[in-house]
Amino acid sequence: MATHKLLLLAGDGIGPEVMEEVKRVIAWLEKAGLASFAIEEGLVGGAAYDAHGVSISEADMALAKASDAVIFGAVGGPKWADVGYDVRPEAGLLRLRKDLELFANLRPALCYPALAEASSLKPEVVEGLDILIVRELTGGVYFGEPKTITDLGNGQKRAIDTQVYDTFEIERIAAVAFELARTRRNKVTSAEKHNVMKSGVLWKEVVTQLHARAFQDVELEHQLADSLAMQLVRWPKQYDVIVTDNLFGDILSDLASMLTGSIGMLPSASLGAADAAGKRASMYEPVHGSAPDIAGQGIANPIAMIGSLAMALRYSLGKGEVADRIETAIAAVLDAGKRTADIAPKGTPAISTAEMGAAIVAAL
Amino acid sequence: MATHKLLLLAGDGIGPEVMEEVKRVIAWLEKAGLASFAIEEGLVGGAAYDAHGVSISEADMALAKASDAVIFGAVGGPKWADVGYDVRPEAGLLRLRKDLELFANLRPALCYPALAEASSLKPEVVEGLDILIVRELTGGVYFGEPKTITDLGNGQKRAIDTQVYDTFEIERIAAVAFELARTRRNKVTSAEKHNVMKSGVLWKEVVTQLHARAFQDVELEHQLADSLAMQLVRWPKQYDVIVTDNLFGDILSDLASMLTGSIGMLPSASLGAADAAGKRASMYEPVHGSAPDIAGQGIANPIAMIGSLAMALRYSLGKGEVADRIETAIAAVLDAGKRTADIAPKGTPAISTAEMGAAIVAAL
Ligand SMILES: CC(C)[C@H](C(=O)O)[C@@H](O)C(=O)O
Ligand SMILES: CC(C)[C@H](C(=O)O)[C@@H](O)C(=O)O
Repeated sequence: MATHKLLLLAGDGIGPEVMEEVKRVIAWLEKAGLASFAIEEGLVGGAAYDAHGVSISEADMALAKASDAVIFGAVGGPKWADVGYDVRPEAGLLRLRKDLELFANLRPALCYPALAEASSLKPEVVEGLDILIVRELTGGVYFGEPKTITDLGNGQKRAIDTQVYDTFEIERIAAVAFELARTRRNKVTSAEKHNVMKSGVLWKEVVTQLHARAFQDVELEHQLADSLAMQLVRWPKQYDVIVTDNLFGDILSDLASMLTGSIGMLPSASLGAADAAGKRASMYEPVHGSAPDIAGQGIANPIAMIGSLAMALRYSLGKGEVADRIETAIAAVLDAGKRTADIAPKGTPAISTAEMGAAIVAAL
Repeated sequence: MATHKLLLLAGDGIGPEVMEEVKRVIAWLEKAGLASFAIEEGLVGGAAYDAHGVSISEADMALAKASDAVIFGAVGGPKWADVGYDVRPEAGLLRLRKDLELFANLRPALCYPALAEASSLKPEVVEGLDILIVRELTGGVYFGEPKTITDLGNGQKRAIDTQVYDTFEIERIAAVAFELARTRRNKVTSAEKHNVMKSGVLWKEVVTQLHARAFQDVELEHQLADSLAMQLVRWPKQYDVIVTDNLFGDILSDLASMLTGSIGMLPSASLGAADAAGKRASMYEPVHGSAPDIAGQGIANPIAMIGSLAMALRYSLGKGEVADRIETAIAAVLDAGKRTADIAPKGTPAISTAEMGAAIVAAL
């Protein structure tokens, strides 16, 4: 059996707590003979800053590049609010994305039937919801130069950020969206602000041309990002795959995941381009953040983190059946009524992070 | 009695239809001796393009500058999808904002009690909701240079947009937010992406300093824009005034207005700085767009447009009592069960644009 090289980067806040439950699942998979792993662990974010004064060390970057997949927890917290811009916790995450060229961020927004009631939206609006946001992750305003603050004198400063997109960047992320749509409900909604931004004009043009050239079998619609935000609230089930840029994707995917009432449940995948052998760099992480307000209490929901391991097994390690098995175990535990605090209805008892991890392993 | 100079720019789509109802209200106010107007009408957006080949003529810009307030309908539609970037319908709106220096865009998201059921959110989440989004309107990525598309050869193009903010731009919009919070529930939430954008770093710094210097009596919280999008869906009532930049404000205010289930109901104000005499340039417009899909059918909801006139009376014309009277009439009509199609529950009869306008005048 192939041995899979995983790098675990637990990060900050609840990251290490939920990563413990991933290790529990990994240990069980090995014992059951379902998969074999070579596990490395590293530091990222505030944890790396405290240890090394940077948001990720060169040694850990090298491990990330050598791994079959990176399993990432979460970064950031008030403790590092005042560290320098270049060594802030988020810089570690952004460097991983950029240096591994993880241009495609897949963020499913899925409403677990057992949890439809937990949403702030009416059950009929979100029951059965299954959207996939495909977010461009290595371009746009996140990385464009100049990105500066200049002192103009007179007590005035000027801040500049630059949104840059080249044709090939738009083309490759749109291709991922079209290909994924073919495996789903065959519809892609492309979101930008072409009425205000030149990058939106180019985005719309490139997506339209690629569609005409290679994906005419997929339904394509264009929507302004502000209008999409509204429509996601009004009637989200009209969407299948949504493709958008780095910044709009950041906001719209958070919005979409909150619709489901299940944000502690949602994993995400960040993928690079496939090489000649079909292998691609990849990183898997929960959609939720480091939640410093509940860190250290052992009450965080580990399902998004364990679901991220399942996504890694499916998309990077060729172990789709094992991924199915984990996802079935998660659903079974939810159907049995087990809930961490974030998804427990008011007045009902909640189980701990470790109890949820143990319950999932028991269901396996 | 002072005569108020208004410029009506109905624009495209449902714009002219809902503007008719504003004229109906204006005629009634004059007949009742409540206010005296000198009304001019002009063209903007696609309508101006069709007539003059530009999105607003110099003559209409001059009228706008000379007016006490501009009442704006909506612009855009598929008919003008392929006109040049500089003469597209939205360019007229952006030029009005920029040339009149309307830096402060006030967008209330208010849930009318009679309409709480129309929201896709659970009634308890939106009942009584009353948020005010204060959006910076003349800076950021909307106007920053360079803003270009360059041909790189090899079939590649590069699109660039530039987000630029200076200290004074952030300061003046934050001051508006703090001042308005004092007249409401005394809380301001400032949203940016300081973890990724330098403009977010400066934004947070300037808002923090202004608060410490002049508004310590107001509660201030900072929130990342993606996290705010989530929290607006989860529990919007935690907010009072939200202040944010042009692009985030575009998306977040559309999102917030959709929470209320009442998007056809919401007016907005765009204000410039006050001169020595306390006079400021101003423009009032519905939050909704030109809705080309329902244009020409006489079924659009004119309430946001009539509410925009009420806002103008209150903020620009010194006629707060007349504004109150219009808003009371709108509420009375809703309480009486009158509904246009967008807010009529399924299976119940809807009235037309003109019938709604007439009902509001009757209630006056
Ligand atoms: C932590 C932060 C830099 C990051 C982002 O803005 O991309 C996060 O919000 C995310 O969506 O993964
Ligand atoms: C029409 C468009 C240019 C405009 C904007 O993006 O500002 C609109 O969405 C708005 O919010 O007023």
